[in-house]
Amino acid sequence: MKIKTLPALALSQRGKRSKLPPISDLMTRALGNPKLISLAAGFVDQATLPVAEMRKAFDALWADPDEARQALQYGTTEGHRPLREKLLAHLQEGDGQTYQDVSIEQFVVTSGSNQQLHLIADTLLDPGDMVICTAPTYLVFMGVLEDVGAKAFGVDMDDAGMVPESLEAALEQLDAQGELGRVKAIYLVSYYDNPSGMTTSVERRQQIVEIAHRWSREQRIHIIEDAAYRELRFDGPDIPSTFSFDEDHETVIYTTTFSKPFAPGIRLGWGVFPKELIDAVTNLKGNIDFGSPNLNQHLLVKIMELGLYEPHIEMLRKNYARKKTAMVNAADKYLRPLSGMSWFEPHGGLYLWLTLPEHIAAGPDGRLFDLALEKGVLYVPGQYCFPELGAGVKKNTIRLSFGVQESDLIDKGVELLAEAIGELM
Amino acid sequence: MKIKTLPALALSQRGKRSKLPPISDLMTRALGNPKLISLAAGFVDQATLPVAEMRKAFDALWADPDEARQALQYGTTEGHRPLREKLLAHLQEGDGQTYQDVSIEQFVVTSGSNQQLHLIADTLLDPGDMVICTAPTYLVFMGVLEDVGAKAFGVDMDDAGMVPESLEAALEQLDAQGELGRVKAIYLVSYYDNPSGMTTSVERRQQIVEIAHRWSREQRIHIIEDAAYRELRFDGPDIPSTFSFDEDHETVIYTTTFSKPFAPGIRLGWGVFPKELIDAVTNLKGNIDFGSPNLNQHLLVKIMELGLYEPHIEMLRKNYARKKTAMVNAADKYLRPLSGMSWFEPHGGLYLWLTLPEHIAAGPDGRLFDLALEKGVLYVPGQYCFPELGAGVKKNTIRLSFGVQESDLIDKGVELLAEAIGELM
Repeated sequence: MKIKTLPALALSQRGKRSKLPPISDLMTRALGNPKLISLAAGFVDQATLPVAEMRKAFDALWADPDEARQALQYGTTEGHRPLREKLLAHLQEGDGQTYQDVSIEQFVVTSGSNQQLHLIADTLLDPGDMVICTAPTYLVFMGVLEDVGAKAFGVDMDDAGMVPESLEAALEQLDAQGELGRVKAIYLVSYYDNPSGMTTSVERRQQIVEIAHRWSREQRIHIIEDAAYRELRFDGPDIPSTFSFDEDHETVIYTTTFSKPFAPGIRLGWGVFPKELIDAVTNLKGNIDFGSPNLNQHLLVKIMELGLYEPHIEMLRKNYARKKTAMVNAADKYLRPLSGMSWFEPHGGLYLWLTLPEHIAAGPDGRLFDLALEKGVLYVPGQYCFPELGAGVKKNTIRLSFGVQESDLIDKGVELLAEAIGELM
Repeated sequence: MKIKTLPALALSQRGKRSKLPPISDLMTRALGNPKLISLAAGFVDQATLPVAEMRKAFDALWADPDEARQALQYGTTEGHRPLREKLLAHLQEGDGQTYQDVSIEQFVVTSGSNQQLHLIADTLLDPGDMVICTAPTYLVFMGVLEDVGAKAFGVDMDDAGMVPESLEAALEQLDAQGELGRVKAIYLVSYYDNPSGMTTSVERRQQIVEIAHRWSREQRIHIIEDAAYRELRFDGPDIPSTFSFDEDHETVIYTTTFSKPFAPGIRLGWGVFPKELIDAVTNLKGNIDFGSPNLNQHLLVKIMELGLYEPHIEMLRKNYARKKTAMVNAADKYLRPLSGMSWFEPHGGLYLWLTLPEHIAAGPDGRLFDLALEKGVLYVPGQYCFPELGAGVKKNTIRLSFGVQESDLIDKGVELLAEAIGELM
C-alpha cells in the first residue's frame, strides 16, 4: 500500500493564491511575551459578551421543545425568516425610512460579515478584476480579493471618508488605461472604518453613489457598504446608510455583522443584495453550507423578542466610548508631546489610527515594531492596510484598538508606544 | 441620484456557474400539496433531535461565566482545540488504531461537511479539472464541482461500492485522451452512500487507495472520503475508514459532519487533511469566516464530556434501523409484486435506492414523478445523482429517504409510489 514518493501536491490557482495575512507573522512573534499589552487585535471586549442575555434566550427557546427541535434541524440557505424580518425592520429604523421596494428575499444571513464579503467577491469578481477601496482599508477584505485573484485599488480618504475627487481620478486613470471594464465595485467601510476610524459623511455617501452610477458604463459598478461598526456609535450624528441613498437599490450591497454589536462566537452576519444578485449569492451559499447555523439564528430572534438586543448595544456604546476616551487621553498625554504625530478622534468603532513622522516606519522593515514589543506593547502596522495599487502605502501609520484592553492598560500601552517612538526620533 | 438604466449586472464566471440544484424545481412543485408524504429530503428525524442533551450542555457551559464568555468570543480558524482533540480520539477509536503520524493540526472544524467539500474543491480544483465519482453520487457534491468549474466523471458501483476495474478503466480512458493531468481526486461516500446506500468494502477501500497511489503520476490524485453517514450503522461490520488504509496519510482527505449523527442546526462538520494541504485550506477558511461558530463547538465538547454523544448515536441507530425496516418491508409488500424492481437493503444511513424497469423514467421527462405527486408521495429522481461524464445516467432510478417520516407514513408512501409505478407498467 505504501509507495515511496508521491508527486507534489498540486494546489488550484485559488489554493495557491490564498495566504495567511502578512500580519500573522508579526502576531506570532508577539506570542512569546505573555505580559504584552496588545492594542492590535480587533476583538471585542471579553467582559461585554452577552452571557446573561444568551441564558435568557436559550431558556426561552428551550421552553418549547418543538421550537428547540426546529432550531436544531436544517434551516434555509438564506436564513431564518423571522430573523430576516427583524433585520429589514432594523435597517429601516436605522435609516429612518420604509423601503417599499426592498423585500426580505434580498436579505441573507451569513457566517459573519466576512462570508458575505467572500460571497460577494465570488459572485462578482473574476481574476484580474478590481475593487476601489480607501487607502487604508480593511485588511481581511484585501485577503478576500486575493483569494479570487482580484485587486484592490486605493484612493485617498480624509476625515469625511473616501475623497470623491480621488475616486473620480482613479476611474479616469483606469479608463484611460482601458481597465474600466475590470472595475466591478467600490468598497466602503462606511461607519468608523477599520482601520482609520473615519465615517463617510452624508454628502460623500450621495456623491459616491452618484459616481458609481455615472461610471457604470460598461458594467455595473457596485458599492459594497461594510457597516460592521455601525452600531458602535459613541457620539456624532446617526447617519443613514449609503444604501439609503441608492434609490433603485441596484448598486449598493449592504453588509454587516453580529460579531461587533453582539458576539463573535455565534458567527452570524447579514446583508442586503440587489434583486439581480441575490440568486447567485444564495445558490453559491447553498452549495457551500446550506445556510448559517439555524440554532444561532433562533437564539438571536429570541434575544430581539425579549428586548435584550438594543440595551446590549447601548451598554457596548458606553463601554467602548469610555475606552476610546482613555486611549485619546493617553494619546494626548504621551503622543502629543512628540512632534509630528497625528490622529483623528473616532465617533464610534474600535480603532485609533496614528500617523507618525514620515521617517518612522512602523512595519517589519522599521525598528519601531520590535522596539515596541521589547517595551511590551503590540500594534498593527498600518502598512498592511494599504492596497498595492493606487494611492500608495504609508509606512508611518499604526492601527491601535481600544476594544480588548481595560482603560489602565490602554493608558500604559500608549505610554510604552510613545516611549518607543520617542527613542526613534 | 436616480438614473434610468444601469448596465446589466455582470456576474463572475463562478457567479454564472453556481446554480440551484436542478432538483429544486421539482421540490417547489411539490409544495402545493400539504398532505404530501415526502420521502425525498435527506433531513434527519425531527423527533430525534437532541433537545435534552443540548439543555444539559448549555447548562454545563454556562455554569462558568468565563467559559461562556470564551464561547461567545472569536475562536480559531481551524476550530476549538479540545473539540479537535476529541475528534482525533474518535477517529482512532473508530478505526481501531493509533495514528502516530497524524496530529490535530490536520483537523479542521467546518460549517457542516459541505463547507469542507467546498474548501477541498477550492484548494485543489481549477476549471476543467475532474473528480472521479461513483454513478450515482452525492448530488450536492456535483454542485460544488460546478461552482469551481470542475467536472464529475462517473464510474460503476455495485453492492461493495465503487468498482475498481471501472475506476481503472476510467483512468486509462482519461490517460489515453491526454486528460489524466486533470484528474485531481476520487470522491467516495464510503459508508451508506447518499444516494445508493452502498458501503465500500474493506477490500475495495484498499484497492482504491492503491489505484490512487499508482495513478498519481503527473500529480497527486487525492481520495475525498465523505463519511457523513458513518455513525448511522444498523448492522454489518464496523469497517475502518479508507483513511486508515492510506499509510502515509497523504492521499485520503477524511470529511464528515455532525448534522447526521447529532443536529444539522449547529452546522458543524470536520475533516482531516494531508499535512501538505492543511495550510491552504485554513488560509482560505480564515478569509471566508475566521472559523466556524465557537459557541457551537464549545457546546459539542460539553455534549461529549457529559457522555451524551455516544448514547445519542445509539438511539439514532435504533431509530433509523427501525424505519429502514419499515421501508424495506413496505418495498417487499408493494414493490416486489411489480416485476423488474430492485433495491439493496442498506446497513446504515438514510436511503433506499430503487431501480425500476428500464422503460420507466422517474425524472421530469417521465410521467411517474407527476403521477406520484398526484397520489401524494414525493421522491428524488435518481437521474440527478449521475455525473454527465463517464458511466452514463440511469433515468429509471429513485432515491427514497426513511429519515423524516414515521413508519406508518413510510409504508403509505411506498404503497402510493407502487400504485403509480404499477399504473405505468
